[in-house]
Amino acid sequence: LTVDESFKRAKARRNRESDVIEAAIAVFYAKGYSAATIQDVADAVGVLKGSLYHYISTKEQLLHKVLRGSHEQAQAIMAQVSELDAPPLERLQTYLRLIHLWYLEHPERVSVYFNQQHHLTGESYAEMRMQNREFELFLRGLLSEAKRTGALADDVDPKLATFFILGALNSLPRWYQPGGPLSRERVAEEFSLMATRMLLPGSGATR
Amino acid sequence: LTVDESFKRAKARRNRESDVIEAAIAVFYAKGYSAATIQDVADAVGVLKGSLYHYISTKEQLLHKVLRGSHEQAQAIMAQVSELDAPPLERLQTYLRLIHLWYLEHPERVSVYFNQQHHLTGESYAEMRMQNREFELFLRGLLSEAKRTGALADDVDPKLATFFILGALNSLPRWYQPGGPLSRERVAEEFSLMATRMLLPGSGATR
Repeated sequence: LTVDESFKRAKARRNRESDVIEAAIAVFYAKGYSAATIQDVADAVGVLKGSLYHYISTKEQLLHKVLRGSHEQAQAIMAQVSELDAPPLERLQTYLRLIHLWYLEHPERVSVYFNQQHHLTGESYAEMRMQNREFELFLRGLLSEAKRTGALADDVDPKLATFFILGALNSLPRWYQPGGPLSRERVAEEFSLMATRMLLPGSGATR
Repeated sequence: LTVDESFKRAKARRNRESDVIEAAIAVFYAKGYSAATIQDVADAVGVLKGSLYHYISTKEQLLHKVLRGSHEQAQAIMAQVSELDAPPLERLQTYLRLIHLWYLEHPERVSVYFNQQHHLTGESYAEMRMQNREFELFLRGLLSEAKRTGALADDVDPKLATFFILGALNSLPRWYQPGGPLSRERVAEEFSLMATRMLLPGSGATR
């Protein structure tokens, strides 16, 4: 193999693996992990079942790859926001907008992440729990930092505010209809604005 | 049968049915609807399987009763709030506090409602969809009314704000740990306060 040929083959393999992952997301979303089979995924990719075993050896491994890939995409957004040279509140607002947009752009991926994750076992399950925790702590960290700089209301509890915001965020795939009257940009902007507003000082809400 | 005996028997039957429903919630929560059996529920109540057929004829009918009962409890809270002689914003705040408390007091019931509802079919499924819609529209109505009286920020979108608040509310059973360091009252108060705060005018959040 020349270097060029070897590069092309590696690239083709990555493309094919990404096709397999996308097909697995569609199948797990439509049928649920329990009812889905490797055969369903092979049919969705349009290949023979045997050729999937180049990429994965079990259905659970496929789910694990789907979830890890999803977390890596979220990590890329977290990294991008961490590297922003901007005050904490601005980083928080940017993160909220980007993560809402990402959810709205990948409703099936996000839905599989949350609704099928309990099917993982052993090490894969432990890894997924760590990912959930990293995701939660990132937002909580942004909130704590913004609070320390005095940008948030004094009585904001970063932990509870994180649960509140992530609860609203995680609900998006449940009700959002792609192609419906509400654009992704509009929903991402409104949700980010509501989340920010509940954190800032100066509203009339009292205990 | 005397009237008294007949009354006692009817009461005993209601108590027993309520035991069956509570057992079904515990079983559906622990095993998931798909894996659960009528035998599991009978074991949890401590009766022979045959005696459950006085109350239900299929597993799906049992799930249907669980979901209908849950919605009736939510309806009782909605009715109580509707009858309050108070301005719209105050009714909204009262509703938020009561519904958060109810969720926190019944985490297994709420979790079964949301995670197992897709197993219903036909008429039961249609009824559950109507219940979801009624629940959503009640909060949306409170928000719209409070907005009309000028109590909310001009740019609050009642529909999107409803999705945001219900998303956060529905996430409670996912993370809340009964008996943990956070009391139900504290979480209900904080969540209600955050929800209210994001709706009120005067915060510094801008687009």
